[in-house]
Order: sequence, then structure tokens, then C-alpha cells
Amino acid sequence: MFSAQTYKERRERLRTMAGGGILLFLGNGEVGMNYADNTYPFRQDSTFLYYFGLDYAGLSAIMDLDSGEDIIFGDELTIDDIVWTGTMPTLSQNALLSGVGKTLPSGELRPLLQKASAQGRSIRFLPPYRGEHSVRLLELLGIAPSEQASKADESFIKAVVDMRIHKSPEEIEAIEEAVDISTRMHLIAYRMARPEVHEAEIAAAVRREACQRQGTDLSFPTIATVKGQALHNHGFIHTLKDGDIFLLDAGAENALHYSGDLSSSMPVGEKFTERQELIYNIHLRSFDAAVKCLAPGVPYKKAHLAAAQAIAEGMTDLGLMKGNPQDIALSGAYALVFPCGTGHMMGLDVHDMENLGEQYVGYTGGEKKGTQFGFKSLRLSRPLEPGFVFTVEPGIYFIPELIDLWRSQGLFKDFINYDRFEAWKDFGGLRNELDYLITPDGCRVLGTIRKPMTIEEVYQARNL
Amino acid sequence: MFSAQTYKERRERLRTMAGGGILLFLGNGEVGMNYADNTYPFRQDSTFLYYFGLDYAGLSAIMDLDSGEDIIFGDELTIDDIVWTGTMPTLSQNALLSGVGKTLPSGELRPLLQKASAQGRSIRFLPPYRGEHSVRLLELLGIAPSEQASKADESFIKAVVDMRIHKSPEEIEAIEEAVDISTRMHLIAYRMARPEVHEAEIAAAVRREACQRQGTDLSFPTIATVKGQALHNHGFIHTLKDGDIFLLDAGAENALHYSGDLSSSMPVGEKFTERQELIYNIHLRSFDAAVKCLAPGVPYKKAHLAAAQAIAEGMTDLGLMKGNPQDIALSGAYALVFPCGTGHMMGLDVHDMENLGEQYVGYTGGEKKGTQFGFKSLRLSRPLEPGFVFTVEPGIYFIPELIDLWRSQGLFKDFINYDRFEAWKDFGGLRNELDYLITPDGCRVLGTIRKPMTIEEVYQARNL
Repeated sequence: MFSAQTYKERRERLRTMAGGGILLFLGNGEVGMNYADNTYPFRQDSTFLYYFGLDYAGLSAIMDLDSGEDIIFGDELTIDDIVWTGTMPTLSQNALLSGVGKTLPSGELRPLLQKASAQGRSIRFLPPYRGEHSVRLLELLGIAPSEQASKADESFIKAVVDMRIHKSPEEIEAIEEAVDISTRMHLIAYRMARPEVHEAEIAAAVRREACQRQGTDLSFPTIATVKGQALHNHGFIHTLKDGDIFLLDAGAENALHYSGDLSSSMPVGEKFTERQELIYNIHLRSFDAAVKCLAPGVPYKKAHLAAAQAIAEGMTDLGLMKGNPQDIALSGAYALVFPCGTGHMMGLDVHDMENLGEQYVGYTGGEKKGTQFGFKSLRLSRPLEPGFVFTVEPGIYFIPELIDLWRSQGLFKDFINYDRFEAWKDFGGLRNELDYLITPDGCRVLGTIRKPMTIEEVYQARNL
Repeated sequence: MFSAQTYKERRERLRTMAGGGILLFLGNGEVGMNYADNTYPFRQDSTFLYYFGLDYAGLSAIMDLDSGEDIIFGDELTIDDIVWTGTMPTLSQNALLSGVGKTLPSGELRPLLQKASAQGRSIRFLPPYRGEHSVRLLELLGIAPSEQASKADESFIKAVVDMRIHKSPEEIEAIEEAVDISTRMHLIAYRMARPEVHEAEIAAAVRREACQRQGTDLSFPTIATVKGQALHNHGFIHTLKDGDIFLLDAGAENALHYSGDLSSSMPVGEKFTERQELIYNIHLRSFDAAVKCLAPGVPYKKAHLAAAQAIAEGMTDLGLMKGNPQDIALSGAYALVFPCGTGHMMGLDVHDMENLGEQYVGYTGGEKKGTQFGFKSLRLSRPLEPGFVFTVEPGIYFIPELIDLWRSQGLFKDFINYDRFEAWKDFGGLRNELDYLITPDGCRVLGTIRKPMTIEEVYQARNL
């Protein structure tokens, strides 16, 4: 945890921004995998962590904005519990660590909220993202699960986003620690990815690295695949072979639950093939083009378009696309090989605050997320500000299903040489990813260990 | 998956046992860790796996017992999905793998159930154990979450328990594979547990071993601790030091999701201390006493009492307890150092079918679970039958909080020398655990690799 003062200051600031009524914070519970007591690793809700810091199951909290009172709700261990768990600090001892002086048993939350509601006071909550939240909101507030998302409080959401989006120096330190663990995970993969090794073996070794310090873990489910073009790929079903590109997208969270998120692409054999080298280097130019844009005041969309244009240039050089690369970027035709966004915010969540809504996190000033294929996957577009932390991860993917679909629909025929694409449908996909901080006068890559990026660095890392 | 024939036969058998109406099977969904799309590793519901075998999120199924029709509900991938995931088999192709010829979109389930319900037919379901189940039962059947457990169908539960509790040869093979992975996990810990190593490092290495084959994973959250007396201990907060006993309780599930569950206790230094050796050997005698009882027709409670009596004998030899060891066992006084049960059923769940109710799984013939401390933690008591698979895991624990509590309450003063216990309050705890199958004429330990049990075997395993 940070100091009690940190949590108090955060709540004070939220109080000045959020108006009146009661803010409700649902801490997370345990989730049973296959029965109630066989639980997944506990993950606290990130907003609860941000304002209260307490990292265990079964807590809720309110901020009464009218009275200025904050209360944490939970249940003390019984002597029966203590026999099984050993002696633990009490809830009120823990609450003091987040600077909260008042605690109540869990069972007091519902009557308190009902009384406030009967007095016409508004009970304001954030959008639920687990079934357990829906059940609790139903029990606490009588709102049906299907109506909860739309009844979440927009100004509460906006205030939380505005605070969590600007990382403090101590948060940046925590993120940098997570990035360093993530880099070590990737360095293991650079060494392991050889013919006859199974994807699952690398994923397991990478996970070991993420987990071997108290409280650290993966920040998201690892992608470890020789089929990088399938962007949602968590099966670990392949054995690596010479000629494959192995793609790892993996990161750790540190003990405070701040994330790192990195991607790496490497040849399974000794070297990239000539064709792989061409695509890898186009991708690197695209990466650099994006990074050159990163500074306060510059919309992240500009970095995205710069990356897209660099990919379009490479594609036209190869004869796969034609026409003006800038037009290819602006039209959205680039998305045939780069269907996702260049990056996303990162913090206590690897896609930071995704449960609060990408529209609030990645867009401002009335700009709406696009609906066109490609642009609709751009999670981050808004002008950058000091303290923003996000990923940069352009990639190049040859997705046979997408190529066939677009060809059949006759999309962007002025920009795309579909005939030429046929010979590339077996290429696969690749990307690299690093994490950046916007500083007052530019940007800084996060992490104290350099993750291999150039082909030379990749080859060096494989032989460490 | 097993063959389609296997799943068809299981459903046929259930049909003959279960009466009429509609049996509802909720497959599991994805669960968001900190937002909806950052999911925990998917774990299918075990009963769904048993009758339908399909191992991915978003499915439900019914067995219409009156018409004899089975239907799987789910949604086909859209072309948009396929762009991101690659081409996948359709739901109807998958359904054939479980021998089900009819599939419908998810959205058809609710109207189908509502229509059946309006016709006065009963919709029978199993107890929910995830928030998502509660939300779905509310939406599908209009039953409030707080009422769902009590409205679960008892004869449906009993029929499922009666089938899943008897393991077929192919299930035993799957369990044995899981046990072998589990044994390899433990062999790693025997080698790693040295002074200056952190609990989290061993837990991470053990997890790596569990995860490095496609589809395998931990079967439950690992316990890896030098404070074995705290029985619910998942924090990994300690660094090992000379003189500690390191206790690992960990297991894998194989790709079909059958579990292994083993425990090991080992000295962190070169050898056990003299005191540790005494307790370890009492524990081994208790283990052997339990195993001697395992045969068809013998109640597992007899094995539990034999283990308890052997521990009581050891405790009286040490002067910690006094009186007749059998009386110490029968009275429940043994539970001061052995507060849990000797074992539990194991199968697709590591505590097999715990979500269906221990009363149905571990007890029969009107026998009710005890309420006294110690006996109330005995998950398995019933007479054993061929095909039962379960753990044997007696342990000896010196729990300071429990010793103080019992002393203050004056419990079992005729059996317990509380004064002597004072000097043992810093001992900690230890256990070993193996998995057994009841055969037609006795029992068999599961796994093809021997897990170290004797002190000599422990020392050998540490120097491999």
C-alpha cells in the first residue's frame, strides 16, 4: 500500500470533483472456479485499490459526499476463522492504513443505503463487470442486472477517470517495476523460443517469472503463439518450428497491482527469413513513427496515423498496396494488415479503466470512437498529457479470413493489390510493444531494462 | 474430450435416473479480473464437462427428459470474431463431439424455458456457485439470487453425484495423469526448499510445472508455506530459513480437467530436527493407519478415526495428551492437533462436487455431518465403493490460537496436557497427502511416480 495520506488525499480530491450524494465502491469478492471455495487468485477492484488500497476480498466502501464521512464495510474474522488463518489485523486496523476511521459490518451497508435512498439522496455507483457485482447491486439497490450499466453514474465515472489517468510519481515507480518484471519475462522467451518447444512451455516459464515475488502476477492472460495473426489467441496449441515467428504478448503486475504490458516477435529458427525481415523492419519504422509523435498536447490518434502511414509505405514498397501512403492511412485501408489500435492507457488495469468505458478514457472533447473497421479498435485517441502512461504496439498481420472478406466485399480496391496478397496469406503476424510515459516536455519509455527491438538486439537476446 | 459415445451414455444413464421435466446445465462464462475483457483462465463447469465435454465459454444445455431431446445453446462466431480468432469449428460441429445433434442460439433458451414453465413443466437446476450463475438463473427463471440455492433440485443433484462419484477406467487414467504432473510439481519443491528461498519462488516453479502442457493448470490455489499450521495460507509472504518445515499442498488438473492433489512436508535445512522427526513419524503412522482401512464397504470415517487414534498414540507417547488413544479419537480431543478431515473425494473437482453439497457427496444413509469441531471438517465419511477416488491427508498442526482457545474453554482437560503444549506452540505443522482409488478388492495409490513419504525418501528427493 501507499501511505494512508495518499489515499486520504485521493478521496479529498474526488470529493471536490464529484458533487453530492453517496459514492459506492464495491471491492471484489472471491470467485469460485468450479465450486465456491476453489477460488481464482484474488484480484481487488482497481478503483477500490486506488481510493482505499485494501487488497483482500469482502470489502465495500462509501464516501458520503454530504457529510464528508468515509466508511469501509467488512466483517471481522471470527475465532473460528483465526484458527484456520492465523491471527490477522482487524478491519479497523486495516482501515486506518487507508486513512479511514470508521468501519461497519457488511450487513450494515444495505440498510444505510436504503435509508439514504428513502431520504431522496442519490446512491452513485460505477459500471459492474462481474456477476457478483450485479448480484450485490441488485441486493443493495434493487436495480435489475440488465439496468445496472445504464444507471452507473457518469460524473462519478468521469471524476475517477480524470484522477486515475494522471499517474503520480509513486505510481510511475510502481508501473516501472511491473515493466521490469515484464521485460525479464520476455528475455526468457527470447532464449526459449526454439524448434520443438511448445507454446505452453514458454507461457509457463514466462508466468513463473511473473509470479515469483510476493503479490506479483500476470497482468493479463499471456499470448504466446506462432500464429500471431490470430489476435485473440490463448490456446497454446502449437509446437514451434523453424521458419515460424514466435509472438509473446505478456506482462506482470507488481505487488501494488500496477501493470506492465510488452510484446516481442522473434524467429524460431536462427534468423528471420528475408520476407520476415522485411516485414519486421517496416514494423520497426512504424513503431518509431508513432513514438516520434508522443508529447503533451499531441493527440494519440496522430501517433496511430503515423504508424499506419509507415506501414502503408512499407506495403506500397512491397507492391501489396498502392497509392499515397497518407491516403491509405486516413482511408482506413491500412487496417487490412493493422486492424487494431496503436496502444491503450495502462495503470492499475492493463487496459486502464476499461470497465469505466473507453469513451471516457481514450477520447475527449466530444470526439467519439470511430465505427469503421480498424479505427473502431483505437482505444486511445485523445491529446496526451503529462502523467499519461500507455502502450505503443503497432503490428503487421496477414489474416487470411480478413483478406478474403475484404476482397469479396471489394473494399479499398484502389489501395490494395489483392492478387499480390495471396502469396502472403501464410505469413502470420508480428508486433513489438513498449510502455511510455508522457513527461512535461516529451515522453519516456518505461522500464530500466531495454527490451530487444532491432533485429540485431533480437538475435543477441536469443543467444544470452 | 472423451468420445461422443461416452457423453451420450452418461446422459442416457442420467435420463433413466432423473425422472421428468427439463434439466438445465449452465456452462461457465468468462470472469473479468479487473474489467470484463481481462479474464481469469477459463474453467468450464465440471458437471457440464461431465455430460457435454465442451470446454469453452458461453454455452448452456438442457436435457428434456420428457421428449428425450438434448440441446446445446450457444452463439456461432461472427465473421468479425473469426477475423480476431481465426477460423474455428461451428457450435453444431462441436455439439456432435458430445453426441448432441441439436443446437440453438443462446437467446432461445429463455423463451424455451418460459414456455415449458408456463406448461407446468419443472425446470430443474443445480446450485449456483458464481455470481454469473445467479444472474443467469434470475434472467432465465425469474428466481431471486437469495432463493436459488434452496430451489436447486435435490434429485438432480443426487443423480449427478451418484454418477460422477464412480470413476470409469478412462477417468481414472485422466486422474492418474494429473497425479503424475502433481508429483513432478512436488519433486521440484523437494529440491528447491532451501534457506533464503522465498515461498513465492517455489509456488511459481511448481505452477510452471503444472502449466507447461496444453490445457493443464493448477487444480487449486497452491499452499506453499513454512507456517503449515495456518491451514488456509495462500500469501507466500515468508522466506525459508534453516529449522523451518516447508509444506506444499499443490496439484494439477490434466487437459480434461481431472485433478491431482498432493501434500509434502520437508525440512528447509539439511535434516529435520529431532522434534520434527518425532512428529513426522507419528504422522506417517497415522497415514498408514488410515490407508490400512481403505477397502470397499469400509466407511471412510473408520480411516479417519484410525488416523486420529494413531496421532493420539503419538501425542500420549510425547506426554502432550493422556488417556486411552481410542477415547481421544472418539471424543474429538485429537482435533486440537488434527482439526481437519483425513480426506475428500477427488475427480473433475479437487473437492469433488463440493458445489453440489458435501452432505450428498461424503455422507449416505441418513448419516449427517457432525457439528463438533474436527468432525465438522470431515468431508468424507461414507462407506467406500469401487471407483471412488479420494485423498488421504492426515496432518499434525500446533495452532497457537486453537491451543489458547481450548485451554481457555477448559476443553478435554482429561485428555490434554495443556502445560506441555506451551513448549510446542512454535512447532508449526506438517502433512503428506496421496490420492487413492478403491478397487474391487482393496485400494490402490494413484500415480505412476512415487511421491516421497518416509524421511529417507524425503532426504533422497532433496538431493536429486
